[in-house]
Amino acid sequence: MDEKTINSIVDTVVDSIKPQTDMTLSAARRLSEKVREKAREMGVNAVVAISNKGANPVMVECMDDSFIASYDIAFGKAYTVVSLKMSTSKLKKLAEPGGSLYGIQFTNGGKIVIFGGGEPLYNKKGELIGGLGVSGGTEAQDTALAEYGKKVFESRSF
Amino acid sequence: MDEKTINSIVDTVVDSIKPQTDMTLSAARRLSEKVREKAREMGVNAVVAISNKGANPVMVECMDDSFIASYDIAFGKAYTVVSLKMSTSKLKKLAEPGGSLYGIQFTNGGKIVIFGGGEPLYNKKGELIGGLGVSGGTEAQDTALAEYGKKVFESRSF
Amino acid sequence: MDEKTINSIVDTVVDSIKPQTDMTLSAARRLSEKVREKAREMGVNAVVAISNKGANPVMVECMDDSFIASYDIAFGKAYTVVSLKMSTSKLKKLAEPGGSLYGIQFTNGGKIVIFGGGEPLYNKKGELIGGLGVSGGTEAQDTALAEYGKKVFESRSF
Amino acid sequence: MDEKTINSIVDTVVDSIKPQTDMTLSAARRLSEKVREKAREMGVNAVVAISNKGANPVMVECMDDSFIASYDIAFGKAYTVVSLKMSTSKLKKLAEPGGSLYGIQFTNGGKIVIFGGGEPLYNKKGELIGGLGVSGGTEAQDTALAEYGKKVFESRSF
Repeated sequence: MDEKTINSIVDTVVDSIKPQTDMTLSAARRLSEKVREKAREMGVNAVVAISNKGANPVMVECMDDSFIASYDIAFGKAYTVVSLKMSTSKLKKLAEPGGSLYGIQFTNGGKIVIFGGGEPLYNKKGELIGGLGVSGGTEAQDTALAEYGKKVFESRSF
Repeated sequence: MDEKTINSIVDTVVDSIKPQTDMTLSAARRLSEKVREKAREMGVNAVVAISNKGANPVMVECMDDSFIASYDIAFGKAYTVVSLKMSTSKLKKLAEPGGSLYGIQFTNGGKIVIFGGGEPLYNKKGELIGGLGVSGGTEAQDTALAEYGKKVFESRSF
Repeated sequence: MDEKTINSIVDTVVDSIKPQTDMTLSAARRLSEKVREKAREMGVNAVVAISNKGANPVMVECMDDSFIASYDIAFGKAYTVVSLKMSTSKLKKLAEPGGSLYGIQFTNGGKIVIFGGGEPLYNKKGELIGGLGVSGGTEAQDTALAEYGKKVFESRSF
Repeated sequence: MDEKTINSIVDTVVDSIKPQTDMTLSAARRLSEKVREKAREMGVNAVVAISNKGANPVMVECMDDSFIASYDIAFGKAYTVVSLKMSTSKLKKLAEPGGSLYGIQFTNGGKIVIFGGGEPLYNKKGELIGGLGVSGGTEAQDTALAEYGKKVFESRSF
């Protein structure tokens, strides 16, 4: 077994005994790998950003030929979902003109992103421990990738 | 009587003789306590920010488990209501696409907030002496909390 | 007993059983009160800022007639001590021209402060759970106030 | 052989035939792993950032318990070394008061870092193709880690 597989098994065992209370780099890297694999299948060059429960970054990875702008966007999505405790898809509706939070995209120094591709990540006890931001494809693709990542993370199948 | 009660009485007496001309930390703290009590009743983890008549902050308090993003938003609301002399609910209408102030959300370095939850605070002579910004619930909840705070402040029942 | 005294007792008991893992508003408010009392004795109008272990703000209080500039400075100190895990007095030496970290004051969007008045706060197990930033007096006064606050926090006498 | 080993061999073979003209995520991830292993040996919780020849980020990884401030600093170092084509140790001397580049730390929106821990990365033909930024230890440790990473990268032993 290689190091990655061993880490994955150890984390899963530890997590089943005592749920992870904050994002770790090891978990973030394995989650990102899964999201990038999926992006590759979909033909998307994605940037994947993962934050911890303090909305601080843990890891950002830019696939080759991804958009330069995607770095800030993926990073912002990972910040947004933790700092507002909701997916960026959900926020999108609230932040549109006429929506209850229209204008929120200007309030946090440019770090709030209001389109799909960001998902909050919870531990087994349902506590928010981090955020996933994906940018690089269409909004539908980014949303699908972030939702896929959330599912992978929550099933601990990574 | 504890210190808080004594301060409250002293402030009320002083205020009836000579109206407060600017927000004080003592008044801000007591007002915030009232708003947080109400938020707790409503099940909202709010951030409460209070500014003075110079639109500068006097106090910000983040209830446990409030949104990380709410700090900047509450702070921005307290700034907005003093710097524009109107509630953020009123501004919301003017700042929507097609509104007379559309674009104002971009003019002050991200400090202007254009959704409910901010109320200007007046002394007994009707002079603007500060602002209250609340963030953490839905827009309706934040608006209700800020309006509640304004009423408490104006009745001096704190 | 008033609410404040009860909260203080409850927190102390809970803390002795299970150390606080992150800053709470209740603890921050009581700590700030102690620091402000001391500042008053010293004739300083201080701004007191307290952050949590994610370097996000929990509370900021500006004493009447404090410097307007002190808000950003106190806030920055509370950010600095958590994000760099050291007091701002210690950082000061490293950040001076010729020091090993000269230039660090420009690297984090203006949030790093490199003069005295910021202290990291630890729980009983020695884990970093927040930061205290004080601004308003001379550097010596701010440093003394932050060190006093750190001592009060660590002895849990608040 | 696991995926990582295969990738490493493929990249080395490809690189010997046709030198890499820009940083790839695959190379960045393997380089970062080496730097993190070394950091672990040295007892440093490091943030490792790697940029491409456009001075744009390719990857940032934050080891558990690294400084929150280190993210911006590592990122800034990786930007600095590519944008100025020199190590941050070398820049340090030029940017001190009295130095020929004193003031450069203010010119690029806070992205220029002027202390050790950043190294430019060259391909086999001596062309600049990326930058490595390390932050988390003392300046001496960060410098040693970045220099180690540069050596590993240039020997392609990763």
